[in-house]
Amino acid sequence: MTQPRVTRYSNRTKYTLGKLASLLVLLHNDELGREIEDELALRGYRYTVGKVGSMDLVKVVAAIETSAKANHVIDPNVYREVHSLYHAILEAIQGVGRGTVQFGEILRTVGLTFSIVRGVVDVSGDSSQWISVCIYGTIGAPKKGFEHDALGFGYNHI
Amino acid sequence: MTQPRVTRYSNRTKYTLGKLASLLVLLHNDELGREIEDELALRGYRYTVGKVGSMDLVKVVAAIETSAKANHVIDPNVYREVHSLYHAILEAIQGVGRGTVQFGEILRTVGLTFSIVRGVVDVSGDSSQWISVCIYGTIGAPKKGFEHDALGFGYNHI
Amino acid sequence: MTQPRVTRYSNRTKYTLGKLASLLVLLHNDELGREIEDELALRGYRYTVGKVGSMDLVKVVAAIETSAKANHVIDPNVYREVHSLYHAILEAIQGVGRGTVQFGEILRTVGLTFSIVRGVVDVSGDSSQWISVCIYGTIGAPKKGFEHDALGFGYNHI
Amino acid sequence: MTQPRVTRYSNRTKYTLGKLASLLVLLHNDELGREIEDELALRGYRYTVGKVGSMDLVKVVAAIETSAKANHVIDPNVYREVHSLYHAILEAIQGVGRGTVQFGEILRTVGLTFSIVRGVVDVSGDSSQWISVCIYGTIGAPKKGFEHDALGFGYNHI
Amino acid sequence: MTQPRVTRYSNRTKYTLGKLASLLVLLHNDELGREIEDELALRGYRYTVGKVGSMDLVKVVAAIETSAKANHVIDPNVYREVHSLYHAILEAIQGVGRGTVQFGEILRTVGLTFSIVRGVVDVSGDSSQWISVCIYGTIGAPKKGFEHDALGFGYNHI
Amino acid sequence: MTQPRVTRYSNRTKYTLGKLASLLVLLHNDELGREIEDELALRGYRYTVGKVGSMDLVKVVAAIETSAKANHVIDPNVYREVHSLYHAILEAIQGVGRGTVQFGEILRTVGLTFSIVRGVVDVSGDSSQWISVCIYGTIGAPKKGFEHDALGFGYNHI
Repeated sequence: MTQPRVTRYSNRTKYTLGKLASLLVLLHNDELGREIEDELALRGYRYTVGKVGSMDLVKVVAAIETSAKANHVIDPNVYREVHSLYHAILEAIQGVGRGTVQFGEILRTVGLTFSIVRGVVDVSGDSSQWISVCIYGTIGAPKKGFEHDALGFGYNHI
Repeated sequence: MTQPRVTRYSNRTKYTLGKLASLLVLLHNDELGREIEDELALRGYRYTVGKVGSMDLVKVVAAIETSAKANHVIDPNVYREVHSLYHAILEAIQGVGRGTVQFGEILRTVGLTFSIVRGVVDVSGDSSQWISVCIYGTIGAPKKGFEHDALGFGYNHI
Repeated sequence: MTQPRVTRYSNRTKYTLGKLASLLVLLHNDELGREIEDELALRGYRYTVGKVGSMDLVKVVAAIETSAKANHVIDPNVYREVHSLYHAILEAIQGVGRGTVQFGEILRTVGLTFSIVRGVVDVSGDSSQWISVCIYGTIGAPKKGFEHDALGFGYNHI
Repeated sequence: MTQPRVTRYSNRTKYTLGKLASLLVLLHNDELGREIEDELALRGYRYTVGKVGSMDLVKVVAAIETSAKANHVIDPNVYREVHSLYHAILEAIQGVGRGTVQFGEILRTVGLTFSIVRGVVDVSGDSSQWISVCIYGTIGAPKKGFEHDALGFGYNHI
Repeated sequence: MTQPRVTRYSNRTKYTLGKLASLLVLLHNDELGREIEDELALRGYRYTVGKVGSMDLVKVVAAIETSAKANHVIDPNVYREVHSLYHAILEAIQGVGRGTVQFGEILRTVGLTFSIVRGVVDVSGDSSQWISVCIYGTIGAPKKGFEHDALGFGYNHI
Repeated sequence: MTQPRVTRYSNRTKYTLGKLASLLVLLHNDELGREIEDELALRGYRYTVGKVGSMDLVKVVAAIETSAKANHVIDPNVYREVHSLYHAILEAIQGVGRGTVQFGEILRTVGLTFSIVRGVVDVSGDSSQWISVCIYGTIGAPKKGFEHDALGFGYNHI
């Protein structure tokens, strides 16, 4: 029997997959993050949260991809799923990079947390799978404190 | 005398200006959004939340700029502040557009909520003013339901 | 009973969906184009060829999208399919524009033929649907003859 | 005495330099590719076809440039010709990369065939030299089969 | 008989075509600009200086192109020359726009002066024609004084 | 007592900070460059000129940043100033790169001189600090002489 949901989010059940991914990455260290995870679980969404810090862009891409595969958010043996995730990652990195998809090449480093959420979304009577990648963290000079917030978001059909 | 803060965010007082801007735009319709506003008020941060829907990119830029001025987040008579806000808006729109800063020109429309937050941030012993613009909403075809979440974020010194 | 295939392409049966889309747009006015169509038909691929000339980017996007829907290459009522096509179109237009997704705004006009092909592709034992958009034509100044060839290509899972 | 041309392309003699470059790269392994070469030879066009596979963007640029020089499509001692080719290569790579000119930095690898064609084109009564670079192949994850077709095209006066 | 040159630029005769184009646009209102024109004339370079102010990108492109044709810097009937100029203009506008080739679409306006210089350059023993476009002026909000300097530069073989 | 200014620039006192930065980088080897320095000194502007040659983008960014700090144009301990400079550098490099912020990755090398100028600008009655970065030099193939002029410009509030 499903428990009645107790929530501090007054509209949690109406949140889109993308909003849940965004709140998950922003609040995963906060108690409120657990409620987002509850909502994701109730919907049967697959998700994960991970961290990566680097000046090396390829490490950021690889860390997100590896995390999605290791945590069964996507099936690593199905190219279609890998392709979908890849483009969602690139979209999210565009938001972090704002104008150019480069980190160390232009002397900046990132310390990032990312969430990946995947599940069924109903759009106008059609149910299909979508995936969202949200990245939150810091970007800046390779000197402690000389950095500021960054946020990026990608979304794709799967 | 300041009241002790009651919060459902276990780490609220540690949130950066950028995280507060992000949570504000995501939760402004939720009761939890009010706590974010409390935190912003306690810190003496100036902020606003607004909405704009359009296929016309220039209307989106103008709506955010107008809202920041009308709500005293920036001083419309100081070019430095206008310049800072402008670049933060463009950065946020890059996250929404992911790859190209165009909406109607490429047959897509947006329905967006934006937050603008401005205040003092301490970095390594230096206190200075920063501004953040966060945009959340939908982007998609000009047909109801054929759209998905979008999120963009900009940050600048002021 | 299936007829034995007579072909002037020695490797036609090995061509990928993307190569067929490319040859279709390049050779649709040539007798050799009919063989490409035969191959597409034999595989059960859905496809169409269309034309659009404009200085107005949004007309190009709309023409390709409308053609795909009208010719049943995608189902216009399924957002997932519309979303997939849309990103394949944008990719192809990036190849045509080379560096900026703009036509009339920078005083250039296009006269384009496009192909859209959609069907099942086997990748490492997984069968799934993919879509390809190929655009070929001319780009140049709005003066007859002051234009040169352009070619763009997009590919997406559907 | 010139032999009468026998062709399976009904419109071959009308093809532009750019279309010939595109068909050459797509069909160079096919018997039909030889006819394209015949047409190029009849027109006195200089051309070559080569291959390069790498995660390293600079190797792709270098391979195309080297091939053009080694096969006398351009004169390596004339900067004007090198400059013209270089920009045509970059344009073609933009089509392959669709949105960002990066391969290994964003964890993708390419296996590419390229054609380079250079010759005289008549435009509105003015005869001058133009060059076209067409690249066709696969782009994808560094895992066999997890890749899809890519096509890029560049064109420049020389 | 050629007069001995009197110059206040100690290195004027060594300046490249591109440096002359840059100084011409920056100093055309200054007496020093006349010396740059002298140098251009002595070398037999064709050049012009013009102005355009607009929120409309296409007007900026058109103004530069029209000025080059009207002042015989390029031959409007030779596509190769028009093509070369066009790409030099786009390059210069990228410098003015810094990141996106858009003016009014993102609520900014420009007031620009441009120079176009074309002539023979010797590179490693090869003499050929090159063209340079330099744009200098202001970019900013459509409000007097709320704008700052902008500078863009393009260069191409012709 | 301030000496009356003797100048060969008829409008020198009206030049904007950005125009002075541009002339400084173009004429620093010329006697006329000294007058620009005089003007900068009279206004109390902080400035420097430096050189960097590399195929490695990050070295170019680092050289400009290091020079600004070492020559006290910005305070290296104030993140706001470092942030402002950083974005001005990126803008200037966009002008040099024209379309993509990459050097060695796409097989091109640069030999650059840069100026950095920082000082008070009055805009509509508001006095505030701005910074400008101007980069001038050559970009081209890694072969002597196979390169041409490049110019980039960035401007930011500080």
